[in-house]
Amino acid sequence: MRLTVLAGGVGGATFLRGLLAARPDADITVIGNTADDITLFGLRVCPDLDTVMYTLGNGISVERGWGREDETWVVKEELAAYGVQPTWFGLGDRDIATHLVRTQMLDAGYGLSAVTEALCARWQLPVRLLPMSDQRIETHVVVDDPENPGARKAIHFQEYWVRLHAEVPAHEIVVVGQEQAKPGPGVLEAIADCDVLLLPPSNPVVSIGTILGVPGIRDAVRATKAPVVGVSPIIGTGPVRGMADKVLAAIGVKSTAAAVGLHHGSRTTGGVLDGWLIDTSDADQLYEINGAGIAGHAVPLWMNDVPTTAAIATAALDLAERLRR
Amino acid sequence: MRLTVLAGGVGGATFLRGLLAARPDADITVIGNTADDITLFGLRVCPDLDTVMYTLGNGISVERGWGREDETWVVKEELAAYGVQPTWFGLGDRDIATHLVRTQMLDAGYGLSAVTEALCARWQLPVRLLPMSDQRIETHVVVDDPENPGARKAIHFQEYWVRLHAEVPAHEIVVVGQEQAKPGPGVLEAIADCDVLLLPPSNPVVSIGTILGVPGIRDAVRATKAPVVGVSPIIGTGPVRGMADKVLAAIGVKSTAAAVGLHHGSRTTGGVLDGWLIDTSDADQLYEINGAGIAGHAVPLWMNDVPTTAAIATAALDLAERLRR
Repeated sequence: MRLTVLAGGVGGATFLRGLLAARPDADITVIGNTADDITLFGLRVCPDLDTVMYTLGNGISVERGWGREDETWVVKEELAAYGVQPTWFGLGDRDIATHLVRTQMLDAGYGLSAVTEALCARWQLPVRLLPMSDQRIETHVVVDDPENPGARKAIHFQEYWVRLHAEVPAHEIVVVGQEQAKPGPGVLEAIADCDVLLLPPSNPVVSIGTILGVPGIRDAVRATKAPVVGVSPIIGTGPVRGMADKVLAAIGVKSTAAAVGLHHGSRTTGGVLDGWLIDTSDADQLYEINGAGIAGHAVPLWMNDVPTTAAIATAALDLAERLRR
Repeated sequence: MRLTVLAGGVGGATFLRGLLAARPDADITVIGNTADDITLFGLRVCPDLDTVMYTLGNGISVERGWGREDETWVVKEELAAYGVQPTWFGLGDRDIATHLVRTQMLDAGYGLSAVTEALCARWQLPVRLLPMSDQRIETHVVVDDPENPGARKAIHFQEYWVRLHAEVPAHEIVVVGQEQAKPGPGVLEAIADCDVLLLPPSNPVVSIGTILGVPGIRDAVRATKAPVVGVSPIIGTGPVRGMADKVLAAIGVKSTAAAVGLHHGSRTTGGVLDGWLIDTSDADQLYEINGAGIAGHAVPLWMNDVPTTAAIATAALDLAERLRR
């Protein structure tokens, strides 16, 4: 069974662990978000790709959910001693080795997809991890400029997310470089030639949204013969994890499972979804979802551990089977 | 008192500690060798500049003589886990932060001298450290090619020195980029406008030799009004430290204090020395040195600790005073 999954960082990686437990023999391709990539101290950092890689390679810090286990922070301390900025991004020593290898390969002319394949080889990943694009795409967030009252400025998504904890109003999301980008090698094929296409509970704006925003990817998702099933990243009025509600507000979408499902839209009316899995506590929203031409289904959606997450993945695949054309 | 010192790595830095102890109020400018600089994993590494910086900034590993004290090696282990080369160069985590700051500043367009000044600011260095040149200069060593019997190949000096421990014959020393290079900002002025110019017991070929080889520097040394006094890096037939004898052989110079002194030559006959300090055990070579127009003087030259090194520095300065024109 060939499964293709569009994934952001922690939410996507967590879902993938469950999916692998539910379908250990599946041939899984992950199309990873690269729009929150950032260059720090000259190092190209790909937080979402690395979270998927470390998680599925058993190198992730389970406690933090990002970065490496048994991590040390000597380089970061020394950079701070030199007084260089930024100090708010958590670059661990083990993690830095990944970025050094990546940056050196990129500088040598390899594409990000080739670099990612080389990095993943060390981790013996049980999936194929493809960056959504080899071109540089970066999400910026328009916020109030504290130094110029009344004015606004665009900051890198990581600064908004990590330094500001998404605690200031996000007026607009600007995905720099996206319009000029192309899907990475193998991405369109993985969408066209799969048995099920899954959208895990990743951030619908800055993860799933930026992947779908790469010219050609949304059309490929709309055209695939495979059923497309998503898992809501919102339970009640809050995100399963992270701060998806903050960026949903920036694009005028309510933080509810139904609103996010309708934002993605039905494939029968120009959207990308055939099915949409929501939490049992949100079952009253099924009527609205089904009314929009999306097959809704309610199951417990909290990814508490691998077995509960595997059950969510199984429910998504079961829903996909029912929707197969 | 304005002192200018041409320095390599460990030998130069050790001598400088003694000089600072002997003349704590002197205004000292160090012209550092950059010809053993190397780019590793995309990071620009300047071993000699860093050895001087860490030593005089009290950040050096006293035990190793190079790199940082309380060093950790997590990044290096991880790079090895990714299977990337080379694995033979000792890049510690604390050290890597220095190289990250340097590389990022160089990539941003700053010259190596401006970068070095910025790095030294953190260490509150008691001297002014100037790279011999802002241009890239790299010493390569011609060795036998083990994969092609009878053929030779040029390898980076660090590979010869660190990986091969200078244990294979060095047929030739090639200083790549040197002919096209210019002295760094302030270098010629520091040579012209000092009261004494000192050559510490650094490697006469790949440290002192490469500094003097930057077009303009040798002429400036020959023209300065200050007396020029060197300290022999050879005692008996062996180097004070390091493996200077191996590279002396490559340029056809015997490993003796007198031979190195004569290699540098007297300023009266086209060389760079007025005085040459040798070890008391080599006093029988004074006749040869003096005969070449260089004022020789024998004192104990082993730099066992700061006081003995301060005594050597004092002897060099005393010899300079006697030679002042």
